[in-house]
Amino acid sequence: MADSPTQTPIVAALPASVPFVPPEALERQAGVKLRLRLGANESLFGPSPAVVRAMAAASAEIQLYGDPDCWDLRERIGRLIGLDSSHIVIGGGIDDLLGLFVRAYVAPGEIAVISAGGYPTMIYQLDGYGARIRRVPYQAFRNDADALVDAAMEARARLVYLANPDNPTGSLLDADTLGRMIRRLPADCLLLLDEAYAELAPAGSLPLIDGEDPRIVRLRTFSKVYGLAGMRVGYAFGAPATIRPIDRIRNHFAIGRLAQAAAIAALEDQDYVADTARLIQEGCRDYADLAESLGFRALPSATNFVAIDVGDAARARSILTRLQHDHGVFIRVPGTAPLDRLVRVTVGRKDDRALFAEALRAVVRHLG
Amino acid sequence: MADSPTQTPIVAALPASVPFVPPEALERQAGVKLRLRLGANESLFGPSPAVVRAMAAASAEIQLYGDPDCWDLRERIGRLIGLDSSHIVIGGGIDDLLGLFVRAYVAPGEIAVISAGGYPTMIYQLDGYGARIRRVPYQAFRNDADALVDAAMEARARLVYLANPDNPTGSLLDADTLGRMIRRLPADCLLLLDEAYAELAPAGSLPLIDGEDPRIVRLRTFSKVYGLAGMRVGYAFGAPATIRPIDRIRNHFAIGRLAQAAAIAALEDQDYVADTARLIQEGCRDYADLAESLGFRALPSATNFVAIDVGDAARARSILTRLQHDHGVFIRVPGTAPLDRLVRVTVGRKDDRALFAEALRAVVRHLG
Repeated sequence: MADSPTQTPIVAALPASVPFVPPEALERQAGVKLRLRLGANESLFGPSPAVVRAMAAASAEIQLYGDPDCWDLRERIGRLIGLDSSHIVIGGGIDDLLGLFVRAYVAPGEIAVISAGGYPTMIYQLDGYGARIRRVPYQAFRNDADALVDAAMEARARLVYLANPDNPTGSLLDADTLGRMIRRLPADCLLLLDEAYAELAPAGSLPLIDGEDPRIVRLRTFSKVYGLAGMRVGYAFGAPATIRPIDRIRNHFAIGRLAQAAAIAALEDQDYVADTARLIQEGCRDYADLAESLGFRALPSATNFVAIDVGDAARARSILTRLQHDHGVFIRVPGTAPLDRLVRVTVGRKDDRALFAEALRAVVRHLG
Repeated sequence: MADSPTQTPIVAALPASVPFVPPEALERQAGVKLRLRLGANESLFGPSPAVVRAMAAASAEIQLYGDPDCWDLRERIGRLIGLDSSHIVIGGGIDDLLGLFVRAYVAPGEIAVISAGGYPTMIYQLDGYGARIRRVPYQAFRNDADALVDAAMEARARLVYLANPDNPTGSLLDADTLGRMIRRLPADCLLLLDEAYAELAPAGSLPLIDGEDPRIVRLRTFSKVYGLAGMRVGYAFGAPATIRPIDRIRNHFAIGRLAQAAAIAALEDQDYVADTARLIQEGCRDYADLAESLGFRALPSATNFVAIDVGDAARARSILTRLQHDHGVFIRVPGTAPLDRLVRVTVGRKDDRALFAEALRAVVRHLG
């Protein structure tokens, strides 16, 4: 008998790592408040005022559990995407849903495919459930759709993860490329298509929604353009045969009353979403101009952040460090080569961008 | 190759059941709104007004993720329970934490012990992670501490779950009984002590807090007396060696900004908690008087609900059905014998209780 409770073999083997060091931890380490949070792709434009009103109204009933079926929210999402609610499951953000789909569809020791440098929280979930991971290199800072399917075929993978629009590059695979990828995908392989930034992709660029293909699950969130990162709501949709088994394992009361009310109100103000998307796209252009003026190249972005290629990893790391220490500006640099030469910056409001431009210019001047 | 993605063996074997049918589903089935929700042990007294103010303030920053370390909240909880924050982990309610501890400490096929008729969501989590369940009968509507340990020893169980104060009976095991149980617990067996109703137990009745015993994890929540069921925050505490591995698997950004702000404000108004506890205890006495006046016996309660023994399961089921259909009153009856002769009713405010008393009298008169 062990002399204390022991973790399961899978959990015991996990490193004591976290997917992301948060800005709050940086502040605690440095003992100073950051001036500008441009590292987590939060929407500094905030939610619609209608959402804030809906939250205030719902807070009068905060002593009550939310509806575990998230009935009204699923109905409302269904109208937006043109599927009935049997195709939809709600989670506590995409992170939560990634964990649930890995748990449901990838047994310990089975294989999942992801781009090398892809979303750290997806890696964290795969590791956490004992999956084996096959990594596929990016090509010119874009996901390599063909190579992802090739790897899935060769490895007999149970799951492929693809972010589109992509994080951390901001790149987009067009509907034709994705269509070809999906046609080649093995019948028993699940494609988790992380569309956290869907509302920011150019109109018509995402694949049409097919609610019948059991291999495709698409994930969206209220944490980005909807401005509700602090509320934790996301959704997944696909064929009911693939979606509904999640009901056997999800925490049924996980999505609180306020979260559901906020998400419903956010969905109902699509004008605000469109306006915010336009403001963000304007911000992306500002960042591209800024990068060019400093002799760098901004990758095209279909998201609310811009990845600036600063040439090499050491320089990217220096820029991150100096921005943080000297200017109180929080950004991120991906941890995996060759993405680690990218400086990833969230699009802020006009004032935020001016502050960032000033800080980045000073840092680049200082680094020489 | 399967012709579509298939679930893991554990998930494929799960029934399509839910731990609880929610009142919203009852309303949708009946096509009418319930008048009174007395089935989920929500606090109809609501949260402190200071909490509502804190939530309104935090909603101005709802576009930002919450601190994944929940640093301030853990510090504040630590001061309340007299442990430093390395002993504490935050979850999305106790339900979330139960899942995390099962996942971390019970490998598929290993054994967990629980009272027969114990918390359905704990059963759901154990089933969901492929644990085998050993059930121990209640004795006179109380958890049988000695028998739970006997079963754990005999089955070489990895985990024992015990709710204290108990749901659905409302009963309490005193500190001496628990102390004896803990002394006998095998060294490698984890005791998950669900203290969702801790704040309602008589002063001094719960075991002293020991932050060093690696076998004991205690779970508490903001969903009951704090009045924040719709916000989803709970916490677990124990020895860091047992608590900290949860950081390897939890969703790090799961606890939103508003949830953290609400929980902190709730902790800071302990006068409100004490006042609410007194009002609830008054309500328990009202229900006991009501039960007696109808010839039933209310079990003593250390929670915010009362279990009324109506003599047999058929009668309990009839009372539940009639209350719901004829009076729009939602209560619960446990699904497992012999607890299924109990009618479990949440303590509402004075007006709620008057409505309930009227409805119950009418139903009992009608049933004869």
